[in-house]
Amino acid sequence: MTRIKPSPRARFAHMRPMQLRWNDNDVYGHMNNAVHFQLFDSAVNDWMLDQKILDFHMKGPVFLVVSTSCQYFAEIAYPAQAEVAIGITRLGGSSITYRLGLFHKGGDQAVAEGEFVHVNVDPATHKPMPIAPAHRALFETLLID
Amino acid sequence: MTRIKPSPRARFAHMRPMQLRWNDNDVYGHMNNAVHFQLFDSAVNDWMLDQKILDFHMKGPVFLVVSTSCQYFAEIAYPAQAEVAIGITRLGGSSITYRLGLFHKGGDQAVAEGEFVHVNVDPATHKPMPIAPAHRALFETLLID
Amino acid sequence: MTRIKPSPRARFAHMRPMQLRWNDNDVYGHMNNAVHFQLFDSAVNDWMLDQKILDFHMKGPVFLVVSTSCQYFAEIAYPAQAEVAIGITRLGGSSITYRLGLFHKGGDQAVAEGEFVHVNVDPATHKPMPIAPAHRALFETLLID
Amino acid sequence: MTRIKPSPRARFAHMRPMQLRWNDNDVYGHMNNAVHFQLFDSAVNDWMLDQKILDFHMKGPVFLVVSTSCQYFAEIAYPAQAEVAIGITRLGGSSITYRLGLFHKGGDQAVAEGEFVHVNVDPATHKPMPIAPAHRALFETLLID
Repeated sequence: MTRIKPSPRARFAHMRPMQLRWNDNDVYGHMNNAVHFQLFDSAVNDWMLDQKILDFHMKGPVFLVVSTSCQYFAEIAYPAQAEVAIGITRLGGSSITYRLGLFHKGGDQAVAEGEFVHVNVDPATHKPMPIAPAHRALFETLLID
Repeated sequence: MTRIKPSPRARFAHMRPMQLRWNDNDVYGHMNNAVHFQLFDSAVNDWMLDQKILDFHMKGPVFLVVSTSCQYFAEIAYPAQAEVAIGITRLGGSSITYRLGLFHKGGDQAVAEGEFVHVNVDPATHKPMPIAPAHRALFETLLID
Repeated sequence: MTRIKPSPRARFAHMRPMQLRWNDNDVYGHMNNAVHFQLFDSAVNDWMLDQKILDFHMKGPVFLVVSTSCQYFAEIAYPAQAEVAIGITRLGGSSITYRLGLFHKGGDQAVAEGEFVHVNVDPATHKPMPIAPAHRALFETLLID
Repeated sequence: MTRIKPSPRARFAHMRPMQLRWNDNDVYGHMNNAVHFQLFDSAVNDWMLDQKILDFHMKGPVFLVVSTSCQYFAEIAYPAQAEVAIGITRLGGSSITYRLGLFHKGGDQAVAEGEFVHVNVDPATHKPMPIAPAHRALFETLLID
């Protein structure tokens, strides 16, 4: 099994604090592997809401997740203070590939790290459609590597 | 159906910020009713961890939830900023009855409010045992009404 | 603290099998208290979907939860096989009060039991509206006590 | 973005029914992307519990998740009846690479599909340790491709 190495904090374009919950920990006393994806999803949507790419009432464009992955380098557990780091590694015509890192607050290396691919879709048909130019300019501010 | 009225912010002894997540919202576009209990549980445990009543490695006493309730006065939805307010309305020999309110950040009235009863149990047998005097003194700081 | 007693299986009008998940268990090795409400919510909605009161595409009436409660009599944990028992104890003009019990598969007494109050609301305004007569007749089949 | 194609049902070694929940659906009316990992995790643990590789009281060996991924080919939503298909594509000295597919009940092609890597670790230190020979024989029954 080839394992990638955790990325340093400096690789990413943006950080967001993420609060863990009591029930995020499973019987092994650490955060369950599915919770990482809740945090990645929230971090990306938080950023898009801040940028007004997404609308509070979900009336704007729809971005569907078509692919996700996560590598778990170290355990993390509630009540740790966590941060999710965001960068975009590929910006296609209708898709965005994010790299996401989960860090202990102020930590240098990701404890978990993954990829998350969004496709911009028509709100009614859920078919892919081109990213709006104004949104593309915002996504470009997160480009890394 | 008799409905209690939402409590004002001033009724409570302690407030904690709570971060909502994208997947907390259900198809109706508001926070699902079960999420309130995740937030109540985390707020109470956060406070107990801060007070060192609970131990980070879960090696201290165990408090089991024997009763919960929630009244939903208004809808709240991710990405709202929320706070959970805590007070203790009854401190028994081995049980603690918390009143918990969910507020919009800085809001005057609870959008949802409930009760949460913890019983202090023996970590091995899960049978009720008296609350330790040092812990009782800490719980007393949250007494309200 | 006055505790109600667990209801026997025979009290309820309808049973639904409920599958637990690995991550339903928390660090204490039992199902977290918030999960009970996910199961109650799903059981009630499952039944309403079967009865065609709710529409698969969520285009029919909307029932909002205004009040929930749960008493926890015994611990239950994944991978137990569970059932949720349903009965209606009060059918108002626009509200339905459900009694819900969580049972081990085939068990005689509820391991947890609670109440769940739905209000029929206008899909657009979320204001209460009368339960449709055809739906009322279906809800009446679950009346207990 | 290179996309793999969904695997046919026949590729897998084992199927398990999976019950969806009301709150699995997010505001887009489909199952949130993080829920797939709850289902994959439960399916693998269900199988290990059935085989007595894992112990009901979590006293046996510990398998930690070090890597997960999922490709989402089609939307699926509560109240659909779902199944998770399991196969093992690589059985290392201490690691197991599972291929997991989410299917509609009886469906021919996966609606989502991913990988899940478990490492057998020492319960006390969480350091990798060799898979026990008796367990290896059981894992071999799931080898595919």
